[in-house]
Parts: sequence; structure tokens; C-alpha cells
Amino acid sequence: MHVLITMQFDGTNYHGFQVQKNAHTVCEELQNALERLYGVRPPVKGCSRTDAGVHAEGYCVSYRQPKPIAPQKLPLAINRFLPDDIRVFAAREVEEEFHARYSSVSKEYIYRIRNSRVADVFRGRYEWRVSAPLDTDAMRRAAALACGTHDFRAFMSSGSDIEDTVRTVHFFRVERSGDEIVCHICADGYLYNMVRILVGTLVEAGAHRMEPEEMAQVIASRDRSRAGDTAPAQGLCLYRVRYSFT
Amino acid sequence: MHVLITMQFDGTNYHGFQVQKNAHTVCEELQNALERLYGVRPPVKGCSRTDAGVHAEGYCVSYRQPKPIAPQKLPLAINRFLPDDIRVFAAREVEEEFHARYSSVSKEYIYRIRNSRVADVFRGRYEWRVSAPLDTDAMRRAAALACGTHDFRAFMSSGSDIEDTVRTVHFFRVERSGDEIVCHICADGYLYNMVRILVGTLVEAGAHRMEPEEMAQVIASRDRSRAGDTAPAQGLCLYRVRYSFT
Repeated sequence: MHVLITMQFDGTNYHGFQVQKNAHTVCEELQNALERLYGVRPPVKGCSRTDAGVHAEGYCVSYRQPKPIAPQKLPLAINRFLPDDIRVFAAREVEEEFHARYSSVSKEYIYRIRNSRVADVFRGRYEWRVSAPLDTDAMRRAAALACGTHDFRAFMSSGSDIEDTVRTVHFFRVERSGDEIVCHICADGYLYNMVRILVGTLVEAGAHRMEPEEMAQVIASRDRSRAGDTAPAQGLCLYRVRYSFT
Repeated sequence: MHVLITMQFDGTNYHGFQVQKNAHTVCEELQNALERLYGVRPPVKGCSRTDAGVHAEGYCVSYRQPKPIAPQKLPLAINRFLPDDIRVFAAREVEEEFHARYSSVSKEYIYRIRNSRVADVFRGRYEWRVSAPLDTDAMRRAAALACGTHDFRAFMSSGSDIEDTVRTVHFFRVERSGDEIVCHICADGYLYNMVRILVGTLVEAGAHRMEPEEMAQVIASRDRSRAGDTAPAQGLCLYRVRYSFT
């Protein structure tokens, strides 16, 4: 039986999801847990690569069960063997051809900014603290220009050899509550570091270091040096992955 | 100049606020920071004793400044020398006779419960996870009976030699949002472990292991063994201290 599990993880202590040599990853911990549960180590398919330090509220993984366990029993069964900073909270059966990454319809990320001269001790590991007062209206105007289908090459970190850099952003919202600013983006896919560079560019607009309307020219330039800095990993959280059935 | 500073701390790694021998405390870290700032180590007055592992959103401390620094500059000046899990976010001048503890009018605590079979990886350090489904309406009915002026001796851990066990609870609210339950209490003062034992008793009512209306008899009994267990420290957070001027 093929299953899709959904998990939360605090990425602070991990080098992202994907297994790497000489680095502690979420996938490695998950496979260790699955090996203890099933007696064999099943290959797993993650919904995305995530950078070191990035968090997840709804990371999805699919795999073929080496022996059948009812999906409703899986979260507690797997959690017994996982460290406290990773938790499976949902599981369901999926078709054999399902792939957590390639079957996804869209992915949502949340990026959290603390716009304050003082860090929040409870939220500090999950936010980018920006001292300069940010104009959220300017951030919203810049974000609106990123919505739709564009070539996002200007928002891709070097080191990626991807050819097709066109993506569709379904929405890109900026909400403020006190000194917390939450940027919520949904797209059909993302280039390497795309969300973090987009957020870095919104902060330029919010700090009045660029005009929000310049966002259109930055996109059109396809030039990484025209966009803002890459926002720190710790503010980023993979919020939700949508499939045809969710 | 006497000042009152307000701070946030994550209590996970501390044995409470108050200085103790052979234990790492918030007060010790604060005094270390003040010593580095002023060159001398000023005595400080905390607003309450807090247990090991308890957190604070608005812990108040008063002290006489060894040399005058403008209150609006104090948060950043002190934070430079504090560890990441303690942050001063406000400061103001107060009268010489002011005492963070004895001048307080009321104190509010928040107690967070995660009513789920699965822990939340981001909130786990700040919540008590309770698997049994909790009836928040029953919890509210029990909480309502604790409001007002009562002898709360049944809600005091042994080891306290306090004589006057009468306190006034101004409000005791129970709010649910998804699987998070937040208990918010405001009183003129608290006995040792009072909030944690009150919450432990609400959970008895919420899990239908006692009738909510029994709360009245538990209070009247003045008998610790009639009340619920002491809820774990990590769910508790000192939320706000009120003074005549706030």
C-alpha cells in the first residue's frame, strides 16, 4: 500500500529534508523511524527540497509500505520513533503512481518577519527580525506585481542549472499583526531560494529602499543582482502542499 | 533613578526567576547583564517567584540604577548582554518606594494545553499536551466557580508556610482554537502552584473525571488532595502584571 504522510518539523537543527552526506537531515530521521517501524528501510519521496533551517507545518512524503499498517494508525506509530522536533500528524492511502513532489498542484510557504528592534524569545527561531520600520502597504504593492505567470530567473540563486524558470504565483499576501509581518505565497512551483529572494525584495520596498513598482522591472530584467538579498532561512516555513484530492 | 523593566523569557533552560545556589536562573542572567552595563551589580526586585520551566511574556523587575540611563534606551542596552532566551522590551521610571512585587495590583497568567494525540513541534515547549478529549464547556463551568474571593488552600502545594490563603480571582477564561486550549487567569495574587493546580482541576472536569460543579466543594474543602494534579510547568506563562499606572 502506498501512503502519503504529512508532517511538521522544526528545521533549526537540520540541514533540510533531503539526505546528504555528513549532514543531519529530516529525511534521515524519518527513514530511521520507518526502519524501526517496518523492519526495513523504505525509500521515500519528499514534496520538495528544503534548505537548512527551513521549517514545515505541512511537509508531505509518499512511500510504499513494506508491510500494511492502517493509515489512521500511522502517525502515532511513526511518532514513537521520531525526535521531538519532527511529528507526523496525518496519513492517507494514495495510488501507486502518486509522488509527493510531482503530483503536487501547488505549494504554499509562509515567511515570518518580526519588525522590531527587540527579538521575540518564543518566536525568534521562526522569524527574520528586521529593525527598520517596514511599510506593509509598499510590500503588498510589490507582492501584487509578482502574482501571475512570470519568468522568475531574477529570483533564483546561482548554482541552480534549471532551464525552465517560468512559474505561476497564485497569491502573495502580506499581513501585519502588531510587529509580526506574515508573507504567505502560493505557487505551482518555486526556483531555488525563490521565496527567500522575493521576501528580501519586499523588504527593500517596505524599507523604502526601492519603489514597490520597480518589482515589475526586476522581474523583467531576469537579473539576480536587481532583486533583494536572500532572506534568512529561519523565517521560512513550508505551510501546505495541495494535491488533486486535497 | 528607579526603573521598572518588562521582559520576556523562555523558561525552558532556567530554574525560575529567583537566584538560587547551584541553579541557573533568569535573575542571575539579568544581574550579569546589568553588571556589564553599569559596572556594578545592582540588587533587583522581581514581580514574582516563578517555578523552573515557567515562561514569561511580561515579567517585571524594578531596581535602582547605579548610574542614570534614559529608560527608552534601556531595553537595547541591557539586551546586548542577555542570552537569546531573555529579552527586555520596555522600561520606565518609577518612584523610589516602588517594588515590582508588592506594588502590583494584579497578575495574569496564561496556561496553554494542546488537546491532541500529536505534539506541535513549534509549540511543544510551551504547552501541556493532553490526549483525552477535553470538554471546554465543562472546563469553563469549573473555572467560573473559582472566580471571586475564596480561600484557595486546596490549590496550594505543600511546602508553603503562607498563613493567609485567601485570594481574589478577577477572571478565569478558557478559550479553544482548534486543538489549542488557552486558560487565562487574573488574580490579585497566587499561592504556591495555584495556577497549575487550578488548571489540573479544570482538566479533570474537561475529561469528565469530575463534575464541573464539584469545583465549589473542592474550594470549600481547603484540602489539596481534593483538587487535581499540578499541571506541568512548561504550559505556564506569566502574561502581564498590572500596577496602578498601567
